[in-house]
Amino acid sequence: MAATSILPGVQTAVEVLTARFGAQLSTSAAVLEQHGTDESWHPPVLPDVVVFAESTQDVADAVRICAAHRLPVVAFGAGTSLEGHIAALRGGLSLDLSRMNALVELNVADLDVTVQAGMTRLALNDRLKRHGLFFPVDPGADASLGGMASTRASGTNAVRYGTMRENVLSLTVVLADGRVIRTGGRARKSSAGYDLTRLFVGAEGTLGIVTEVTLRLQGLPEAVSAATCAFPSVTDAVEAVIEVIQSGTPVARAELLDETQIRACNAYSGLGLPELPHLFFEFHGTPASVQEQAEYVATIAASHGAAGFEWATAAEDRTRLWKARHDAYYAGLALRPGAKGWATDVCVPISRLAECLGQTKVDLDASPLISAVVGHVGDGNFHVLFLLDPGDLTQQEEAARLNVRMVRRALTMGGTCSGEHGIGYGKKDLLIEEHGEAIEVMRLLKTALDPDNILNPGKVVDI
Amino acid sequence: MAATSILPGVQTAVEVLTARFGAQLSTSAAVLEQHGTDESWHPPVLPDVVVFAESTQDVADAVRICAAHRLPVVAFGAGTSLEGHIAALRGGLSLDLSRMNALVELNVADLDVTVQAGMTRLALNDRLKRHGLFFPVDPGADASLGGMASTRASGTNAVRYGTMRENVLSLTVVLADGRVIRTGGRARKSSAGYDLTRLFVGAEGTLGIVTEVTLRLQGLPEAVSAATCAFPSVTDAVEAVIEVIQSGTPVARAELLDETQIRACNAYSGLGLPELPHLFFEFHGTPASVQEQAEYVATIAASHGAAGFEWATAAEDRTRLWKARHDAYYAGLALRPGAKGWATDVCVPISRLAECLGQTKVDLDASPLISAVVGHVGDGNFHVLFLLDPGDLTQQEEAARLNVRMVRRALTMGGTCSGEHGIGYGKKDLLIEEHGEAIEVMRLLKTALDPDNILNPGKVVDI
Repeated sequence: MAATSILPGVQTAVEVLTARFGAQLSTSAAVLEQHGTDESWHPPVLPDVVVFAESTQDVADAVRICAAHRLPVVAFGAGTSLEGHIAALRGGLSLDLSRMNALVELNVADLDVTVQAGMTRLALNDRLKRHGLFFPVDPGADASLGGMASTRASGTNAVRYGTMRENVLSLTVVLADGRVIRTGGRARKSSAGYDLTRLFVGAEGTLGIVTEVTLRLQGLPEAVSAATCAFPSVTDAVEAVIEVIQSGTPVARAELLDETQIRACNAYSGLGLPELPHLFFEFHGTPASVQEQAEYVATIAASHGAAGFEWATAAEDRTRLWKARHDAYYAGLALRPGAKGWATDVCVPISRLAECLGQTKVDLDASPLISAVVGHVGDGNFHVLFLLDPGDLTQQEEAARLNVRMVRRALTMGGTCSGEHGIGYGKKDLLIEEHGEAIEVMRLLKTALDPDNILNPGKVVDI
Repeated sequence: MAATSILPGVQTAVEVLTARFGAQLSTSAAVLEQHGTDESWHPPVLPDVVVFAESTQDVADAVRICAAHRLPVVAFGAGTSLEGHIAALRGGLSLDLSRMNALVELNVADLDVTVQAGMTRLALNDRLKRHGLFFPVDPGADASLGGMASTRASGTNAVRYGTMRENVLSLTVVLADGRVIRTGGRARKSSAGYDLTRLFVGAEGTLGIVTEVTLRLQGLPEAVSAATCAFPSVTDAVEAVIEVIQSGTPVARAELLDETQIRACNAYSGLGLPELPHLFFEFHGTPASVQEQAEYVATIAASHGAAGFEWATAAEDRTRLWKARHDAYYAGLALRPGAKGWATDVCVPISRLAECLGQTKVDLDASPLISAVVGHVGDGNFHVLFLLDPGDLTQQEEAARLNVRMVRRALTMGGTCSGEHGIGYGKKDLLIEEHGEAIEVMRLLKTALDPDNILNPGKVVDI
């Protein structure tokens, strides 16, 4: 599956990179294969060369060399992207940031931290725990924080704490010509000029390469409680969540798993739940407020037909529950051993969620494909995982058909073609359908910041 | 004080605008004067012509005409900016959006609303009340929501609900060539492409003209309580707030007024408080959680020397209290009849707030100028209002000196040169000091989106 680089002068560029990076550089087949492969359904597309950066200076030097030789450069974190974000579509350099995994500066009093882009979210939370703090954004995978910033990631806590959009305070970014900038300071708010931080959050490495991330942190809540309950249908579950959100209850997590996903999690994580659509809730606050929230939500859920309310009061039960939820993707894959997963997501205004999800379930039930649904339904965001036989083009076409129908349905409802996975090169056409004329502004930005199109070319927008 | 336009072809452009807009266009001296004047210390700088837009199409047509004639175009909302944002530095068209004050679409179930850019925040909240909803962002003035988006405004509720950065879901924007785009949909989150919404939020009309704003709303809290208390010093008050924020208590408002500002508010709004530094708090939630928060905060405040805890339990008492806080700027002006106000603000990480504010107070106390301090201290943001004799250049130079010292102090502490007022043309040099090399990225954005520099030229960044 290796890509044959179409660019002239690659050899010269690799020689210059080798002279600068020595043992930090690799062209071994295994390393190239790993760096051309993410967790998506897209086939691997390999780079010509990999450099393991150890500092912002390394990144700046590598980008400067690439710029001089017009060599594409693709940033690589944990390799957990879901739309081919790290595929080296035009060959070139994969710049691996995983060794840049240091905690640069923790400000406990200000509830902020600066980390290098390669630190993962679990490693960060491990460092924060002793200070009574946590970082709430939690995609399923143990992604790198630079990668999470670059895909505008979110997860189960977004309904309460927001996504990377709200939780990144500022960034260190290497520009397409190798210059290094800071996008902001540590103040909680600022009206000082254009919002450079949000320009790079979600840009998927196409406008610059994120090397350090300053994040807002949260205090670990004094009290936490979690609960699961089963519903007669996905629609009943969604309607319960809508009522909870509209009531203003500050629920910390509200996750939907359909009957297929429950079966998968039972098998993979030993949850032992009835094979029905479920909601998983979590509440954060003082002991009194947690109890107040939980009781209120239980009443609403019951009025929508919920049964089998199970409280996870012990910390280890909660850990097992949320570990199972974070492993939902891997559990889904295990439903069909040897299968390739195709994960997609949309997000709609919450008033349209029951309708959007209901119609999508009808589509999925009518298809011969095996699929599972999970959702951060408190945000109006849900995921479908298709399980495909590798190499079966008919199945792949069927997944593509269902995916396009689901996205177009979401767009007609005021929604978006991706709530948290991003565009990569899998949703570029759908991005155009979503944004219309505004896509031209995205192209203007890309051209202004990366005139030679060396930064992750072929992703997000084509120029 | 009228500017003499330096541009050739103004007369032709005005003729074309007159043909298109007829009675919606004015060149009367009073109208020009009004549209060259904001609430800042900057002298009025008048446009050549004013058009009162009544639709996005009007804005698009006006911009297209201006583009054809290279005529500068400055968007005008309520005229409440504080750094000369609306000054027609190079003459041209002032595009008044105040007639575009309609509510376009309210989605109660989704807690969002779309309004035309000219609607003001008080008018919006008046419309929302009957639905049990409110929009929390509240600068002192009754600004237009398009203007608030364009300056990334915030206010007293930001500590709990965020600023315009977090509360704008999407925008309709007229680009420099007259094209109209939507920056996004109504989904709560999206990973679909570059963050165009945040590109225009805070851009002060220099990258495009905002004509419609889609906003996140909040449910009116079930219970509200407010309190005031006095402290021996500003530093004691700030340290109490820091402890409250660090505890994770979800306080809705935490406002500081120094002894001068209290004197001003007593005189202007009849508050009758002792002339000492005060904190004003507000708590939102269920009755139980509001009581829990209030008791906890009272304990912390007392441990920092707070006295005279006064509870505003009746709704009318709270309204009077917050009305007085919102009128702080006008109260300050009234301290010195005939004075011109110079309002400035900075924002720092909260751990540095006591030090930053303490050193600033030493500077202010040592100066002959009269000044008052108020602060959204829960965010690390505070304001100084200098009261100047109009035309006294020595006083103006002294205010400038104190302002630069305060901003540089904030920058060395990881802060920003403006927490919520913006740059206009008053803080362009300080913006460069804050952002360093990153200012070049701002210039790239400006050049890409407005190559002929017709949109509010001379503001934020020079190209």
